[in-house]
Order: sequence, then C-alpha cells, then structure tokens
Amino acid sequence: MEKRDNGGGPGTLYVIGTGPGALDNITGAAIAALKRAEVVVGYSTYLSLIDEIIRGKEILSSEMMKEVERCRTALSLAETGKQVALVSGGDPGIYAMAGLVFEIAEKEGYGAAIEIIPGIAAVNGCAARLGAPLMHDFAAISLSDLLTPWERIEKRLEAAAMADFVTVIYNPRSKKRTKQLVRAREIFLRFRSPQTVTGIVTAATRIDEHKIITTLDRLLEHEIGMQSTIIIGNSQTYTWSDLMITPRGYGEKYKL
Amino acid sequence: MEKRDNGGGPGTLYVIGTGPGALDNITGAAIAALKRAEVVVGYSTYLSLIDEIIRGKEILSSEMMKEVERCRTALSLAETGKQVALVSGGDPGIYAMAGLVFEIAEKEGYGAAIEIIPGIAAVNGCAARLGAPLMHDFAAISLSDLLTPWERIEKRLEAAAMADFVTVIYNPRSKKRTKQLVRAREIFLRFRSPQTVTGIVTAATRIDEHKIITTLDRLLEHEIGMQSTIIIGNSQTYTWSDLMITPRGYGEKYKL
Repeated sequence: MEKRDNGGGPGTLYVIGTGPGALDNITGAAIAALKRAEVVVGYSTYLSLIDEIIRGKEILSSEMMKEVERCRTALSLAETGKQVALVSGGDPGIYAMAGLVFEIAEKEGYGAAIEIIPGIAAVNGCAARLGAPLMHDFAAISLSDLLTPWERIEKRLEAAAMADFVTVIYNPRSKKRTKQLVRAREIFLRFRSPQTVTGIVTAATRIDEHKIITTLDRLLEHEIGMQSTIIIGNSQTYTWSDLMITPRGYGEKYKL
Repeated sequence: MEKRDNGGGPGTLYVIGTGPGALDNITGAAIAALKRAEVVVGYSTYLSLIDEIIRGKEILSSEMMKEVERCRTALSLAETGKQVALVSGGDPGIYAMAGLVFEIAEKEGYGAAIEIIPGIAAVNGCAARLGAPLMHDFAAISLSDLLTPWERIEKRLEAAAMADFVTVIYNPRSKKRTKQLVRAREIFLRFRSPQTVTGIVTAATRIDEHKIITTLDRLLEHEIGMQSTIIIGNSQTYTWSDLMITPRGYGEKYKL
C-alpha cells in the first residue's frame, strides 16, 4: 500500500515497555516518552499501572486480544502529526508489540516515525526474583500455539532440553490451554533429571507476586497461569536458601 | 565456611544493573538503591556512566577481570552493616554479577542481605536498536570459552541453529579470541540460509553506538569487538528500512 498523504508532518509513535509491574521498574527514557505523548494507547491493565504518569492525557484503552487494532489506532494517530505512546508491559521488544507495529506500518503504509523504548522484560524481572538462574546460556520459548504450529515449539523444546540451556517458558498455561505444559515437561524429562531446579514466578514485582522454587518432577503440582513465567535450570543449577543459582563457572576456575 | 560474627547487624548489598549505557535507561528502582547506598563498588567504566547519581559517595572502582575480588569487597562491606551498591552494566541477572555474588556469599559465609535490581540487558537494548528481532523464541549464547568448555558452546550453537531460534551471541570476539565467531558462523551455515538476516550492535545507546544489519554470509566483513552483540534472525526474519523484524505470526492469522 502507498504511503498516505497526511497533510501536516507525521508525528512519532513511541512503543514503550513499562516493565514487569511495579512503577519503579520503568526507565527514565520510558517516563520521558510517556510525558511527551499527547495520546496514550494500551491495554487497560498496563495503563492502570502507570496511571500517575499519564493522568490528564488523552487515553485510548482496549481489552486484550485486539493487538492489531491497537497498533493501527496508534499508527494512524501518529501519522496525523501527534506524539503517541503505545504501552505494553515488560519489554515491547521481547514477544511483544514492537514487531506488530513495524509489520503493520510496512504492509499498510503508515508514515510516522517509530521508536522502541526497551523495558525490563518478564525474563529479567523473574530471574531477579528467583536469584540468578540466567548466568549461563538460555533459551526463551513460548508455549502459545495460537500463532505458531505446535510441531515447531516442540522441536525447540527438544533442542533446548538436549543442549542443556536454561529455559524460560513464556505463556505456559491458560484456562483453555493446559496440555502444552504437560507435554513440555515430558520432553524435558527425556533429557534432564527429574531433580532439575525449576522456578515459577507469577505477577513479578506486583503486589500479588508469588514465587516458587521446585523441581521439574513436581512442576505440575503448583499453580501456574497466564501471569506466570517458568525458568527451568540447566544441569548445574542449584538451590541455596530460597534462590536458584546457575553457576557461570568461576567456582571451577578460581577454586571458590 | 561458617557465618562470620559481624558485631553490628548486617547491611544490604544491592546488585544493580545500569542498563546498556545511556543514563536514561536506568530504572527508578536502581536509582533509588544507588541513592540509598553508602558505598558503591564497580568497574570504573560503568561507574563513570552514572557519575552524576553517585557523586560524593564512597566509591571503590576496579578494573575488569577482578570480579571475584569485587564481589568479596562488596559482601564484606555489607556484612559490617553498610548499605552497599555493586554496579554492573546491563542486567546483573543475565550473564553477570548476580550469580557470583550468591556463590561467594554461600561458599564463604557472608551475612548480608542481597537484593538483585534488574536492568535493561544488552539483549533488550540491542533488540530495540535493530527493530524487532526477538518477537519469537530465542536463545542467548556466549562465545567466551574462558569459563565454559568450547564443546558445550558448540553443542548449543548447533541446537539453536537447527531448531530455528533467533540467536543472540554474547562476547562474540575479543582481540585474542577470534576463532570462536568464525566457527559459530560455520555451524549456523550448516542449518541456515547464507541470507539469514543478522544484526550487530556495538556500544548500544552510548555516544559511539554503531549498528549494522547484514547477512550470515557477510557477518565477518564487519567490525565486531568486545562491546558488540550479534543477533542472528530465524528463517522468517526480514529487513524493512534499516530494521530487522521477526514476525510473531499475526500476518498469517489476521491476513495483514
């Protein structure tokens, strides 16, 4: 599609990540962009978390599962010359809105400048809550097969399990989607010990935050939902106090 | 080792990530912890980036490759009852200081409280600069074989290449360590097209930031060093304008 003639000069669309929850996990760059914005677009849950920053601005909130419409709205407004903030939780660059914004801008020919402002992603926030699980090579895999064929996800689970990656599981389970996590655990147990240290963080840094450190064996005994992220340790990961720690290898080298 | 008797009550060690470079990529939580700290410990390059926040405090800066000593110093000070900040670039929870702090605290019996404050990691910062490469499952692999046997790294490179993970390469090359990247590219070319979109970001968000979008085929023609992170796209990753984009799958589902 050709670029539209927008009369005045185009504005900027800031695609902003607000981090895992608590307001103090937002960066200065994200706050500055939110303050510059004339219009703020986003899913209502995320917007309520940053209420005190965006109060008084034009706000277009929407419900989950309308990602495409939300991106189009934000791009249209930016094209008319406005400064627009499109807000998501976590980091817009990790399994989130950044890609969809670019895809729609390209395919439908919107003319605004687009700037991605990174945030603390679930992977960073959950790791900090669990101790230090991501000190070595890791893989991130989403179990949502809404937009990805399950065979592809399964192939990645096998590769990650086999090559001893610490593995971050996004979207492990929802009310309707429960079999994927059962299968993922089965695949891991083909390559890894049942005692593999495994952490679950739900609603990281929010008031209802809940974390558990368990084993691969007992993973399914715990409450896991839409707000949960799971980190499966590698063969070296161990627990200390209420933490999970993946050694980087200093211990062997420096005889700690 | 037994816990030492530290006389007064123990203090807190905040392990803080300052993000990829620019001051406005630090979170509010990190700034608050830096302000609370009486002593700040860190590698001099990172401390100079946050000079205006920590000015006037007791500062213990050290050179690279003394990580173990740095952690011990910070833990000892915290044990005496001080509020101590141990600062690293990026996110202390991703290939960084968090793990070593816990390992030393455990093995050598330090008594301080330890809190990890996450930051924007290289993986988040570089992705934002390159467009939207991490919209789908990804793996992070460090090519440094200083603390990890090369065979293990090679196994992970093969698994990531084979299962079509977007792959983030940490520590791709230093002056002395040049063969690893050559070998990593060879492994990828066994499973992936030479045209696979590949991004290189050096010194992300700093004044000397430099980014290149190239192909796996031409990867080695570009300047890559200690400050560089490489992101190899998956088989779906494409370029648009000066960006690399990995589609999430909305295009197929919603007929964009």
